[in-house]
Amino acid sequence: MDLDLTATTADLASAASALVRLVPGKLIDPVLSGVLLTATAEGVALAANDRERAVRVARPAVTHTEGRVLVPAKPLADTLRALEFEQVRLVVEGSRLAIRGPGARFALPLLDADVHPGVAPPPPLAGTVDGAVFAAALATVSTAASRDDALPMFTGVRIRSEDDRLVLLATDRYQMAVARISWQSAGQTVDALVPATLLGEIAKQVDHGGPVALHADQDRFGLVWTNLAATTSVLDGSFLHESKVSVSDVDTEVELDADALAGAVRRVGLYTDARGVLLLEVGDGEVRLRGADQRAGEAEETVKADVTGGRTPQAYQSRFLTDALRPFHGGRVRLRIQPGMRATEFSATEPTDTNLRYVVMPMLPPKN
Amino acid sequence: MDLDLTATTADLASAASALVRLVPGKLIDPVLSGVLLTATAEGVALAANDRERAVRVARPAVTHTEGRVLVPAKPLADTLRALEFEQVRLVVEGSRLAIRGPGARFALPLLDADVHPGVAPPPPLAGTVDGAVFAAALATVSTAASRDDALPMFTGVRIRSEDDRLVLLATDRYQMAVARISWQSAGQTVDALVPATLLGEIAKQVDHGGPVALHADQDRFGLVWTNLAATTSVLDGSFLHESKVSVSDVDTEVELDADALAGAVRRVGLYTDARGVLLLEVGDGEVRLRGADQRAGEAEETVKADVTGGRTPQAYQSRFLTDALRPFHGGRVRLRIQPGMRATEFSATEPTDTNLRYVVMPMLPPKN
Repeated sequence: MDLDLTATTADLASAASALVRLVPGKLIDPVLSGVLLTATAEGVALAANDRERAVRVARPAVTHTEGRVLVPAKPLADTLRALEFEQVRLVVEGSRLAIRGPGARFALPLLDADVHPGVAPPPPLAGTVDGAVFAAALATVSTAASRDDALPMFTGVRIRSEDDRLVLLATDRYQMAVARISWQSAGQTVDALVPATLLGEIAKQVDHGGPVALHADQDRFGLVWTNLAATTSVLDGSFLHESKVSVSDVDTEVELDADALAGAVRRVGLYTDARGVLLLEVGDGEVRLRGADQRAGEAEETVKADVTGGRTPQAYQSRFLTDALRPFHGGRVRLRIQPGMRATEFSATEPTDTNLRYVVMPMLPPKN
Repeated sequence: MDLDLTATTADLASAASALVRLVPGKLIDPVLSGVLLTATAEGVALAANDRERAVRVARPAVTHTEGRVLVPAKPLADTLRALEFEQVRLVVEGSRLAIRGPGARFALPLLDADVHPGVAPPPPLAGTVDGAVFAAALATVSTAASRDDALPMFTGVRIRSEDDRLVLLATDRYQMAVARISWQSAGQTVDALVPATLLGEIAKQVDHGGPVALHADQDRFGLVWTNLAATTSVLDGSFLHESKVSVSDVDTEVELDADALAGAVRRVGLYTDARGVLLLEVGDGEVRLRGADQRAGEAEETVKADVTGGRTPQAYQSRFLTDALRPFHGGRVRLRIQPGMRATEFSATEPTDTNLRYVVMPMLPPKN
C-alpha cells in the first residue's frame, strides 16, 4: 500500500468530520469504521461505508504518490481537526499512515483496504431541489420522526415526488410534519423511507447556495451536492401518508405570533404535571395557556390572537407545542383545532417555500 | 403570611439564579430547598440555608406590603429567568405567592416559613481581597480539588492567611494548586477548609470590580461582596500544606509558551493508552511530546523551549497537563522537573497577582 499527498488542513479536516458525522460507523467492525483514502492526480477522495450508509467526499490535494489506504475514521478526523498548521501531508510509512506537519507526526495503523466494501456510485438521478429550501424542510421534518429504534418504521422520513412537488413526511405517532417543496424532476419519481438521523445531519451540512441532486432506485436513496455524495439503503414507507391524519372537523381557527406563543409555552410549561400537559383555552381575541401541578403550583398566560369559528379548548404536551412552533419562528402561525382527541394542525399564515404543516395529537386535559 | 412588591425582573431573576447555584438545596427537604423572601421598606432579600451553606442576597424593590414568605427556590428562579416583561410583581394570594406580569400569573405554593432556620449574619470580618484576583485564584485552585465525595477531605480548598498573603491550596493527591494573593487583614487570621464546589461557583459570581470581604470564626467561613453574603460550615484543613510536596530535587527546568504546549498535549493526547499517559522528553531547545496506543497508533510533536539543567524525561496523564497549563494561557510557563516518581511544578515565568504554582504527579511511562 502506498499514498503520499499534501492538502490544506482545514479542507481535509472538514471532509473527514463530515464523513464521520454522516457515517458514525459500527464499533464492532473496525473495517466498517474506517475511512478509505484514495489519492489520484485529481486530488483526494475520502469514503466510508457501514453497509447501510455510504458517503464519498472529494477534496483538492497535491498527490505525490497515488494510492489507496484504509485508516480508522474518527482518529483521523479528530487529529486533522486539532491541527494548527495550514498544510498537512499524509504519507504511508511502513504499516502506518503518517499525518505530518512542522515538528509533528501522528501515525494511524493501516487497516486492510482490500476487505472494505468500497463505495458504489449513487443510483440514477431522479431530480434536483434547492439546497436552502431542502435543508429547512429536512431540519423540521426529521425532528418529528421517532428516535426509538424499537419502532424502525417511525425513525424515517418519507420522501415522495408528486409532479413538480417533493413531499417530506415524518411522524412518531404523536406528531407529524409534512413539507411540500418544489423540485425539478429528471423524469423519474421518488418514494423512499430514509433514516431521519441521516437527513437531520444532511440538513446541517448541505450546501445552502446551490442545488442538491436526488438519486434513487428500488433499494437505495442518494443525495449529491458539490463534492459530496451520500447514499443509504431505504425501507418501504408507503404506510406513512398525510391523509392518515384527518383535519376535516376543524371548528376553531387561531392566528397568532409564533414566538409569543412559544415563550408562553416555555414559561407555563414549568408548571405542569408529570405528563407535561398544558391546556390551551380559546377566548375572544386571545388564547390562554394554563398549567397546574400539585407541587409546583399553577400558571396561566394570555397571548393575543385572531380567533375564528368556535372556542374549542385543547390540551397538549408542552414539548410537542415547542417543536410545532419552532419552524414558524419569526412569523405568525395558524392553529386549526378539532374537538375531542383529534389532531391540531399548525401552518404558516403566509405562503412559504416549505409549505410546512405540523400536526400535534392532543392529550387528555390535566385534572384540577 | 403577607407580601406584595414590584421589582425589575432581570434584577430579581439574577438574584434567584445566584442563590440556586450557590445553595443547590437538599431534595429530601422542601424547606431547605426553599427561598425565604423578605420585603421591607429597603427592598427585598432572598435567602437560602441548607444547614451547610447559607446565602443572603438583597435587591432593590418597591414594597407595597411588608412580609416574609418561603417558596420553592428552583421554580421561582426558573420562572423569573423565563419572563420577558421588564417589571414583575410578587404578591401573596391565599396559599400562593403569585408572580404577576401583563397577561400572566404564575403561582407557587407557600411553604411554612416558621420552620426555616433563617440565615444568620456572617462571622466576624477577617480581611479583604481584590475581587478579580480572588476569582482568578479560586477558578484555578478549586479545579485541583477532588470531585469524589468519598474523600471529603480532598474536596475542599484550604484558605490560610500568612501575614499580608492569603494562601489558597487544593489537591486531589494527583495534582495540587497553590495560589498566594495579597490581602488586607482586619486583625484576624483565617484558616479554613472550604468546599471547592462552592468556591468554584463563587469564582464565577464574585464582583470583579470591587473588594471581597472574608469572614471567619471557628466553625464558619463567609464571603461578602456588594449585596451578597455566602457562609458555609468548614472542616479542619491543617493536613493540607504545600510543604507536603517536595520540589527539592529539580534537575531540569523548561520554559516555553503555555498555549503551544497545551495544543500539542491536546493533539498527541488523542494517541494514548487507556491510562491517557503522555511522555515528555526534554531535548536541546525543545521538548517532545510522545503518545502511543496499540490501536490508535502513535504521535509525537516538538515544541520550542528554553531548557536548563538536565534532560530528565517524565510521563503524565494528558488531562492533568491540560489542567496545569490552562491558568498560564496566553503566557510562558516554567516546568521544574524532578527525576523518578516525584512531582513536576508549573509556574509563570513572569510575576502574577495570583503567584500560582501547579504541581502534577508523574505516571509510569507507557510501555513500548
